[in-house]
Amino acid sequence: MKRKIRMGMVGGGRGAFIGAIHRMAAALDGQIELVCGAFSSDPDRSKASGADLFLPPERCYGDYEEMILAEANLPADKKMDLVSIVTPNHMHFGPAMVALESGFHVICDKPLCTTLDAARQLQSKVRSSGLVFAVTHAYTGYPMVKQARMMIANGELGKIRRIVVEYPQGWLSTALEQTDQKQASWRTDPAKSGAAGAMGDIGTHAENLAEYVTGLYIDEICADLHSHIPGRLLDDDGSVLLRMNNGARGVLYASQISAGEENNLRIRVYGEKGSIDWSQMEPNSLIVRWLDKSMEVIRTGVGNLYPQTQKHTRVPAGHPEGYLEAFANIYRNVVYTIQARIEGLDVDPDLDFPTVDDGVRGMEFIDAVVRSGKQDEVKWFKMSSQ
Amino acid sequence: MKRKIRMGMVGGGRGAFIGAIHRMAAALDGQIELVCGAFSSDPDRSKASGADLFLPPERCYGDYEEMILAEANLPADKKMDLVSIVTPNHMHFGPAMVALESGFHVICDKPLCTTLDAARQLQSKVRSSGLVFAVTHAYTGYPMVKQARMMIANGELGKIRRIVVEYPQGWLSTALEQTDQKQASWRTDPAKSGAAGAMGDIGTHAENLAEYVTGLYIDEICADLHSHIPGRLLDDDGSVLLRMNNGARGVLYASQISAGEENNLRIRVYGEKGSIDWSQMEPNSLIVRWLDKSMEVIRTGVGNLYPQTQKHTRVPAGHPEGYLEAFANIYRNVVYTIQARIEGLDVDPDLDFPTVDDGVRGMEFIDAVVRSGKQDEVKWFKMSSQ
Amino acid sequence: MKRKIRMGMVGGGRGAFIGAIHRMAAALDGQIELVCGAFSSDPDRSKASGADLFLPPERCYGDYEEMILAEANLPADKKMDLVSIVTPNHMHFGPAMVALESGFHVICDKPLCTTLDAARQLQSKVRSSGLVFAVTHAYTGYPMVKQARMMIANGELGKIRRIVVEYPQGWLSTALEQTDQKQASWRTDPAKSGAAGAMGDIGTHAENLAEYVTGLYIDEICADLHSHIPGRLLDDDGSVLLRMNNGARGVLYASQISAGEENNLRIRVYGEKGSIDWSQMEPNSLIVRWLDKSMEVIRTGVGNLYPQTQKHTRVPAGHPEGYLEAFANIYRNVVYTIQARIEGLDVDPDLDFPTVDDGVRGMEFIDAVVRSGKQDEVKWFKMSSQ
Amino acid sequence: MKRKIRMGMVGGGRGAFIGAIHRMAAALDGQIELVCGAFSSDPDRSKASGADLFLPPERCYGDYEEMILAEANLPADKKMDLVSIVTPNHMHFGPAMVALESGFHVICDKPLCTTLDAARQLQSKVRSSGLVFAVTHAYTGYPMVKQARMMIANGELGKIRRIVVEYPQGWLSTALEQTDQKQASWRTDPAKSGAAGAMGDIGTHAENLAEYVTGLYIDEICADLHSHIPGRLLDDDGSVLLRMNNGARGVLYASQISAGEENNLRIRVYGEKGSIDWSQMEPNSLIVRWLDKSMEVIRTGVGNLYPQTQKHTRVPAGHPEGYLEAFANIYRNVVYTIQARIEGLDVDPDLDFPTVDDGVRGMEFIDAVVRSGKQDEVKWFKMSSQ
Repeated sequence: MKRKIRMGMVGGGRGAFIGAIHRMAAALDGQIELVCGAFSSDPDRSKASGADLFLPPERCYGDYEEMILAEANLPADKKMDLVSIVTPNHMHFGPAMVALESGFHVICDKPLCTTLDAARQLQSKVRSSGLVFAVTHAYTGYPMVKQARMMIANGELGKIRRIVVEYPQGWLSTALEQTDQKQASWRTDPAKSGAAGAMGDIGTHAENLAEYVTGLYIDEICADLHSHIPGRLLDDDGSVLLRMNNGARGVLYASQISAGEENNLRIRVYGEKGSIDWSQMEPNSLIVRWLDKSMEVIRTGVGNLYPQTQKHTRVPAGHPEGYLEAFANIYRNVVYTIQARIEGLDVDPDLDFPTVDDGVRGMEFIDAVVRSGKQDEVKWFKMSSQ
Repeated sequence: MKRKIRMGMVGGGRGAFIGAIHRMAAALDGQIELVCGAFSSDPDRSKASGADLFLPPERCYGDYEEMILAEANLPADKKMDLVSIVTPNHMHFGPAMVALESGFHVICDKPLCTTLDAARQLQSKVRSSGLVFAVTHAYTGYPMVKQARMMIANGELGKIRRIVVEYPQGWLSTALEQTDQKQASWRTDPAKSGAAGAMGDIGTHAENLAEYVTGLYIDEICADLHSHIPGRLLDDDGSVLLRMNNGARGVLYASQISAGEENNLRIRVYGEKGSIDWSQMEPNSLIVRWLDKSMEVIRTGVGNLYPQTQKHTRVPAGHPEGYLEAFANIYRNVVYTIQARIEGLDVDPDLDFPTVDDGVRGMEFIDAVVRSGKQDEVKWFKMSSQ
Repeated sequence: MKRKIRMGMVGGGRGAFIGAIHRMAAALDGQIELVCGAFSSDPDRSKASGADLFLPPERCYGDYEEMILAEANLPADKKMDLVSIVTPNHMHFGPAMVALESGFHVICDKPLCTTLDAARQLQSKVRSSGLVFAVTHAYTGYPMVKQARMMIANGELGKIRRIVVEYPQGWLSTALEQTDQKQASWRTDPAKSGAAGAMGDIGTHAENLAEYVTGLYIDEICADLHSHIPGRLLDDDGSVLLRMNNGARGVLYASQISAGEENNLRIRVYGEKGSIDWSQMEPNSLIVRWLDKSMEVIRTGVGNLYPQTQKHTRVPAGHPEGYLEAFANIYRNVVYTIQARIEGLDVDPDLDFPTVDDGVRGMEFIDAVVRSGKQDEVKWFKMSSQ
Repeated sequence: MKRKIRMGMVGGGRGAFIGAIHRMAAALDGQIELVCGAFSSDPDRSKASGADLFLPPERCYGDYEEMILAEANLPADKKMDLVSIVTPNHMHFGPAMVALESGFHVICDKPLCTTLDAARQLQSKVRSSGLVFAVTHAYTGYPMVKQARMMIANGELGKIRRIVVEYPQGWLSTALEQTDQKQASWRTDPAKSGAAGAMGDIGTHAENLAEYVTGLYIDEICADLHSHIPGRLLDDDGSVLLRMNNGARGVLYASQISAGEENNLRIRVYGEKGSIDWSQMEPNSLIVRWLDKSMEVIRTGVGNLYPQTQKHTRVPAGHPEGYLEAFANIYRNVVYTIQARIEGLDVDPDLDFPTVDDGVRGMEFIDAVVRSGKQDEVKWFKMSSQ
């Protein structure tokens, strides 16, 4: 019989940011029960954080190893099924690997980890374990992203020729990491964030979205990365020329010094017959421009939606759905998959989510972008002087 | 100590629409546990619906009276605290009154009931009982609605002169109630919906939003109601001239035959110094037009937000929040209020929600609009003939 | 052989506003030559104004009667063909009537004059004279207004049920007429403006647009007019309930105290099958919402445009056309009509323009709105007290 | 005394496209009289085209050399002052050089010519002649482009860090040049268009706009150009990484295979304190996003506009101005400059226009982009394989 899935969380204690997002996403559909957590490396703080969430103290652990070990030894009808990892990047690999080794499914924040090697180890472990492993590239959970993907997969736009994907933010326009701002400080620290700054934090979202929506792969890149803040060690701004495996061309950029921008992820994909245009900040509309007929704005209200689109919307047309609903779609699809396994049922293939393979792909992107962005001599052409 | 609030639900069984919305809104913040329900007047269906929600059969009741009686007799640490009523309009009064009589807090869908008299009985009962009673005019839960309200309350726009509030929908453009569409059939049936159709269903949202945002009261109205579908007994389209208690003028309209419209609730309020413009379909932006400086677009990302606004947003700027989050703000504020009472703490006055008084106000609006809309002789002036 | 049309102007001297608009509109297509003017009632100022426009002093007249008399006596290959009247409202009737009596075609600013009686005299004179007489309801010159009209005329939306037309401005939010602002002072002066303020100045545009786009007539109105500024004699804000000759309902409003609004004319028309939505401030897009398929945005670039639309656009898709181009369409269509008469050719019926009949219709609207807006006792229903 | 400026035109006969745009732009303000033309290389066609424009046959010439020679010999009060060149690219250099040699001012369509060498010859000739020479990068004529430029020049955004400028079109998505479409055929022909396709035709507009708005210069570029249509000889799609002379980074792209796009030129410029965002398709709004306060939308209606902005707007706020008005600003500023010279007056420095230097700059851009776009080996980094 179908039952709620029991979840433990690594990270996400008091004062954390993304942990609360994960918990709301997990709670929305009533399919998940948060049963335990290693919310902080400080055991007291972990217990206090758990108490805020109405958890009993004995299931608020001091670190992830303790949690996973203890939960693995609980009775089958009590122990967690799934670990949600919401720590900074450098703290993804450890809990993910131990969770897999102990037979737990995993939902891990992005990017997958801090090196491509580590990512591939996780990929290998996931494959051999047969466990469910999701990476929260949450933007792919939006209904209109599903719609765009299906339109392209079904050839509605014809062969894809051009992709423009951009993710500007402005929040690192100042040297915020030199204050005590926690989010800024780990994200600009190579030891915690990995080889890339903006390109890792949000460039990978752009890369993931582009490949997910088009069904294509980035084949070659040429990048220019820069840090505009004195003393900042990682890129805060970068632009990338793209060549896709089918010959399509394009541009990807990610910037955290685009002053005044919020989280303005946008993708445009141009095919032979038409194009799609989707913006995260107005996610409930999908603009479709055609070569030979009027522009359309697809919404969940009317018209020919793909089942994949309809299965990822919860409210009537005109009632906007947002980021938490998209994020919840990742959680829900993971949980439906786990529930189906428990019940021995088939999984609905429309209920997909980003997997460890997407996570590895993101690490490959970071690796290539950083290598490209560091070489300077040959690719640049001077404009003639004034 | 703070604890989760236990909720029972009346209505919202399999196939229902608004019940699922209420449950997601209640679940989002992890403060509410759904413990029981009378999901359907068919006991088997109620149990099956409860099983979908992982409830034990013994707390899935066949009707609301059974539920309230049984829950009232459970031990204090087990019985529900709060009843959520998500049935059609004619089924609000009964469970609301019995719940209040049995000492349970209530969250009731809108409009409050089907007659002004019944509404006043509930108001009176709420006052004498001291219990919490919320009506889900959920649009007032949006952060930018709070911002607009605070700006006006603080005199940023000066004296208010004009209000334009509109709620067009298109879903009743055809005789949908003559098919077996459940939502259409009860909403167009005077026995279930009350004296008004569109004006009751969505006009009251417009009325509530206008009074909430401006802090003013509608003093006089002049209405024209119409039904465009042969055989439809209630208005599906209506326009209302407004005169507010401070002398401001305005227009309110609600229509369900505005073909192609989704849920396009919008309010514009004009004061001496500037105006606000808010649309439910892009709820994360508040447009402010000034008499003597550039137009502003207020978002949760930057700038001077009122604490009331900030307390009703959950995600970083640029990550859209939608209808479920607004709806969840109503639930969360109700629950925080109940929790504070349990703990003997003060309630944060910023965490408001629509009360039984708003519900009564909606019924007064329906009453006046229907009376005005029915008289035809005197108010109309012929244009001279062609 | 086709030749340029020679135009004289009444009003529009130095410091005037609408005169320059008319001149640019007349100049754009190179079909009109401005040959003379009575630009001001002060002969010196008239001559100075004419000199700015490179006119010889002998054709810069001191008043309209002098101009019309003198021009009537010039040789046929020299005298003006057409008089453009760009004075305040109370100065329309005189020059229009004298011009018609002297055999000149007329283009007159709106509203047609200051009383319905005078309007009908002009209408009668136009009919008996056979001359061309245009009223510059310039908004009907926009290509997308033509498109909307043709879509409705061809039944694309089905029977029309609802109209919402609005024209908010904010420029009279303060007592501007108590400064020396020329535009404000005559527009708020009943002796110069006529019986209505905002309703005459811009409400007639809304009325004209609604009837033009839908092909329907307003049958009955119920209005509420108000002046928000102490001492202002004419309405600066008003709302009107509409009943159309086919049973459609609607709302029209015009306001000049809607602080922060520019010239935000917008019309929405709802039929059985879909609706159109057009805004003057983004005039190159026509939003079409359908009952059963995705929303479309019609632009001049692609898709099935009516010939009427295509004949009123001058630039490639995506290059915005604005108010002057719409205004120029009125001038151009008038001139094409006059040229065709001169050459004995048929006039292209797609090249229409607002005529004296539209002008009379506007005066009827003002008359009815003012009568309705003045009666107060019977139509209003009190909301029950708080 | 101020007089109208007399203009001759090279190109722009029947069936041409951009010639009509130039004529409307020249006509709008009533400062220019079209007196002659070499509208076509076919003398009969030239005369017929001139007749359409009400020109006498004797001033409709069979070629530009004939025209310039004949006009140069006319009396001073009759001959043209200014030559407008509206031919395809390869026909710019000849008439421009001969006009300059004969003492005529020139307005030339863009790009300046087909080679950088030729461009520099023209530049040199302009400098030695002292004549006025404008290149119609018309987008810089928009009022909000002026506003953006002035805001940046005055440091309102702080140091500029990032530029994103894009110009997608879709009209060459098919092999239109293989039909008899005149615009497509010359634009895709290296002999007529020059070394670049989309980059020359519209990429130069993007380059010009970026440098004009920011006051910066592109220092280095790295480009990827492509042609998506088999058999097409010039680029129809390209992306360019930018490094500016102050260290700012950015992206420029121009595409004519972006199916469904009209003329969607857009520029975003990010500084330390905020950013501007302007789109040609909604040119009357300038979006300004700030690091620490609400987003603003600057319009001509209210607020602190620079005089440069105000001097380039013609109509009241909310009445949209479009492409022709922007184009007319170029013509008007050229003419005001010529008139001032004739009258011996100072020229208002706010009334600027793109000069031959801008034209040369565009040719340098084409040169560098084509050179960069052709080298492939070194700059690209492979993504690791799937």
